[in-house]
Amino acid sequence: MQSLSVPDIIVGRLPLYLRALSHMISEGQEITSSQDLGERLGISSAQIRKDLSQFGEFGKQGTGYNISFLIDQLRKILHVDRIWDVVLVGAGDLGRAVANYRGFLERGFRIIGVYDNDPKKVGQPIGDFVIEEPSRMMEKIRQDRIEIAMLAVPSAAAQEAAENLVEAGVRAILCYAPTSLKVPKDVRVQYIDPVLHLQRMTYYVP
Amino acid sequence: MQSLSVPDIIVGRLPLYLRALSHMISEGQEITSSQDLGERLGISSAQIRKDLSQFGEFGKQGTGYNISFLIDQLRKILHVDRIWDVVLVGAGDLGRAVANYRGFLERGFRIIGVYDNDPKKVGQPIGDFVIEEPSRMMEKIRQDRIEIAMLAVPSAAAQEAAENLVEAGVRAILCYAPTSLKVPKDVRVQYIDPVLHLQRMTYYVP
Repeated sequence: MQSLSVPDIIVGRLPLYLRALSHMISEGQEITSSQDLGERLGISSAQIRKDLSQFGEFGKQGTGYNISFLIDQLRKILHVDRIWDVVLVGAGDLGRAVANYRGFLERGFRIIGVYDNDPKKVGQPIGDFVIEEPSRMMEKIRQDRIEIAMLAVPSAAAQEAAENLVEAGVRAILCYAPTSLKVPKDVRVQYIDPVLHLQRMTYYVP
Repeated sequence: MQSLSVPDIIVGRLPLYLRALSHMISEGQEITSSQDLGERLGISSAQIRKDLSQFGEFGKQGTGYNISFLIDQLRKILHVDRIWDVVLVGAGDLGRAVANYRGFLERGFRIIGVYDNDPKKVGQPIGDFVIEEPSRMMEKIRQDRIEIAMLAVPSAAAQEAAENLVEAGVRAILCYAPTSLKVPKDVRVQYIDPVLHLQRMTYYVP
């Protein structure tokens, strides 16, 4: 099913396809085509066919894709045919928004703890959680073999927090701090920095 | 300075270069090289040289880049050698985190108003702002010719909000809702959806 040689740029589009297909099925649609999907996403149908062909044959010429089947296949490919437990580090405004966000579970992720090194925050409620101290985080990651973390701490604290996460066993970090983390090569990092997106758009708005 | 034919994938890396260079200068560094910058970012030095060469000649062989000069050039290329006024739509948990985030101004963006259609929220404080109703937003965008918006509303409300923004004159939208917006071709949209990033990583974590 999975080829290690697939370019990351293609891997990066699969979650987008999965999200659009899930919207379609929630609207009662059962069959789609690369044209239909492409129109929703602003991606060419040729690109979509080419991307999906990297992983197998999911539709028949002329009859399109069975949405439910394609969703199942994409979930398997992306390894979200299971639920991943995730730790959230940082309980500021952004951490609170992340902790309260209801959209993770149905797409494969469950926050299982929120951690902050501010003694004033430890013990306070946040969403459905109570904020815990970092030493508890290290225990939890080790005990439950947590592999994914979301990092919502200030930039100045991000590198140290990332090193602790990696030391405890985390292998994938979603970093909300506007900085670049140095991590071992076998650890994946993805970044969310709204300003990068804004600046990418102002290039086109003279 | 600007070539319209530069691929968007290259444009998308420029803000990353700008961010890393700004970190360097804040640490007192004055000169860098494509190797040095590449190591910080996990991007090859050849890629960085190739990307920058699309826009001009910014360094000399053997002496590297003057960081301050390169920052100025990148700011001009990305049109963030000015401050852009931005409206924020949606005053939930995420809107609150965005409104309170202190990292926009120094990188070219100033939130000038926060809007929500929930009558219970209108009039309440959020960060340094008071939440206003959408009709005020439309006036503000038109009067001040605001071109950029951040959309932090639930998915179900995102399309309608986007249409209102575009009708009033907005040409670039940063969308935090996990959905794909349909907008006219001359309107840019960038998306922030943490689950897309998480699923892109779980592909690699078997």
